[in-house]
Amino acid sequence: MTTSAPARSETGDPLLLTPGPLTTSKAVKEAMVHDWGSRDAAFIAINKAVMDGLPKIIHGEGRFSCVPMQGSGTFAVEAMLTTFVPKSGEVLVLINGAYGLRAKRILDIAGRAVVVHETAEDTPPDLAEVERILAARPSITHVFAVHCETTSGIRNPIAEIAAIVERQGRRFLVDSMSAFGALPLDSREVRFDAVAASSNKCIQGVPGLGFVLCRNEALAETQGNATTLVLDLFDQHAVFGRTGQYRFTPPIHVIVAFHRALEEFQAEGGVAGRGGRYADNARILIEGMAAMGFETLLPASLQAPIIVTFHMPRDPKFVFQRFYDALKERGFVIYPGKLTVADSFRIGCIGDLHAKDMRAALAAIGEVIAEMGVTAASAKAA
Amino acid sequence: MTTSAPARSETGDPLLLTPGPLTTSKAVKEAMVHDWGSRDAAFIAINKAVMDGLPKIIHGEGRFSCVPMQGSGTFAVEAMLTTFVPKSGEVLVLINGAYGLRAKRILDIAGRAVVVHETAEDTPPDLAEVERILAARPSITHVFAVHCETTSGIRNPIAEIAAIVERQGRRFLVDSMSAFGALPLDSREVRFDAVAASSNKCIQGVPGLGFVLCRNEALAETQGNATTLVLDLFDQHAVFGRTGQYRFTPPIHVIVAFHRALEEFQAEGGVAGRGGRYADNARILIEGMAAMGFETLLPASLQAPIIVTFHMPRDPKFVFQRFYDALKERGFVIYPGKLTVADSFRIGCIGDLHAKDMRAALAAIGEVIAEMGVTAASAKAA
Repeated sequence: MTTSAPARSETGDPLLLTPGPLTTSKAVKEAMVHDWGSRDAAFIAINKAVMDGLPKIIHGEGRFSCVPMQGSGTFAVEAMLTTFVPKSGEVLVLINGAYGLRAKRILDIAGRAVVVHETAEDTPPDLAEVERILAARPSITHVFAVHCETTSGIRNPIAEIAAIVERQGRRFLVDSMSAFGALPLDSREVRFDAVAASSNKCIQGVPGLGFVLCRNEALAETQGNATTLVLDLFDQHAVFGRTGQYRFTPPIHVIVAFHRALEEFQAEGGVAGRGGRYADNARILIEGMAAMGFETLLPASLQAPIIVTFHMPRDPKFVFQRFYDALKERGFVIYPGKLTVADSFRIGCIGDLHAKDMRAALAAIGEVIAEMGVTAASAKAA
Repeated sequence: MTTSAPARSETGDPLLLTPGPLTTSKAVKEAMVHDWGSRDAAFIAINKAVMDGLPKIIHGEGRFSCVPMQGSGTFAVEAMLTTFVPKSGEVLVLINGAYGLRAKRILDIAGRAVVVHETAEDTPPDLAEVERILAARPSITHVFAVHCETTSGIRNPIAEIAAIVERQGRRFLVDSMSAFGALPLDSREVRFDAVAASSNKCIQGVPGLGFVLCRNEALAETQGNATTLVLDLFDQHAVFGRTGQYRFTPPIHVIVAFHRALEEFQAEGGVAGRGGRYADNARILIEGMAAMGFETLLPASLQAPIIVTFHMPRDPKFVFQRFYDALKERGFVIYPGKLTVADSFRIGCIGDLHAKDMRAALAAIGEVIAEMGVTAASAKAA
């Protein structure tokens, strides 16, 4: 039984402690209660404000263009890989989770040659090995890495990888899906050709739009690479240049909500403010969980403040589905499902969640494990 | 100057007389003012209701599966073509407008062999010629046609084409984007392997989701055909079968709005009710425009009640951009842009628009052309 009313967002919904889609503000969602013509000037102006605003987050104004991609983050990643890597290209894919594996699968389907450097889900790439592979294999044209691998929540060393890629004279493509806007990425200091992200992560919009920030000189070289019509970033960008419009119907309401979300992101102080709040959320969560005996998969040095993986308690009285359901009853939706490699579960720290929400989630977790008869000692990892 | 307050929808927006995205009901948009976990049971149940409801519109329950595709209608069409047509396939594409041309472009990029039967934008395919081409060329495996070609608003003879394709032992793929839900398509009488449509046309949802209704036996044969990860309908369907979930983040809010739109569609009487209202809208529009001297591109026998193409008046006092802007000022957004082939413009009849809205639009058009000094006689085609 719950001891108090369940937690609710401003719009009366359970709080999403997931890696996105996430809890958005009421104002972001209310922006969608209108209709616009997709080719009318009013919508075109809103969309342009979004497209102009995103490169500023990586300090890329004038050097980078935002190319939006309808769909989801994976649509943007597939668009990035199949547009930037030519048919004759070869990609070193750095894998330590599901999103690295997914990039390899995309490249395999597209018929692009792939070399893999894979490490365990709790282990960043071996930088010396990355450099050795590149030096030994001149046929590699591109390197792909995931900024925050949501599989474990690990923060991969993007700046260090970028330095190696640049030193070896190759191109760098980054999946920053769950990190973009919360972890700093400064294109003046870190060299890459493109970075992919989406509307429904740290900018706190609703899902339905991916985007790729493309270095203009690199994008200009990609004509004819794409393997599809809809995922061709070169063509998408070229048509924007000529008309200011999408080639194919955009998710208008999603984009207008994203516009509002971007305003709220700037009002919070951009990457510093947003990332700072998430870091507080993660710290409160990890400390509170530790006090109840839960152990994180990752050491603090590798932990991004996006999503935290906890080992399953060794106590057989801890049943994950009951834990999930009892938390949902109390108004907290965590990530449903365990990790396969380590026996573990995940709790997200992003979205319109604040310190009070994390403390309320911890109180609910305390109630639920007490009901299950799990103690701090027995919550330690199996 | 306008003589009265501009027209507004329930949410205070200009009325969209466009071929979609279109004016949706307030309740459809308000359904989006919540958040859901994309892998939580509450959202999965809403999505399942949508996926189960759509095949009923073509009387395909049990024989057809709905495979949703994030993005837009064109994403669904590219997914349909690249999933259903194997690498060794050859497609006869029937073209009489932009959407037939787009299908050819998709197939060219995917490396599928294409044969074209093209007619003018105001002319349906020549059925005898279609049969002759199929009989003469056994290498053709599939035929592709557009139900309502939004380029002109023409209704193509889908049932007659399907009969020829079946008689010749080939497979039929249909783009019913702007017609689905308004023009009847009964899968018990008309044989096809797949039909593509989207959330933001005649079902009156917001944009962001395409879908393909797939004949189960045909879909089962498509494993390994797709040229991408994200557009692979076989894989998308297989993962739904195993998990009930999307492979990649769905546009949750768009889908919840679509769920509400589908309820409103059924409450209006399904295809008969929705299509009947659109037919009334189109009749009122065409008759009212005729009374002001405007002539349609298409004869009544070919005109679908989706979007109507009018010849540009011969009078040089008629300036299209002024016409568009003055109508928008009065609260009516028509399709911005002329057709290239015939010198013409287009007005849509679909969305949450009713007889009174069409009459108000006609009154506004009358005001605007009077201001321009265009008379009924001079509004006749150039």
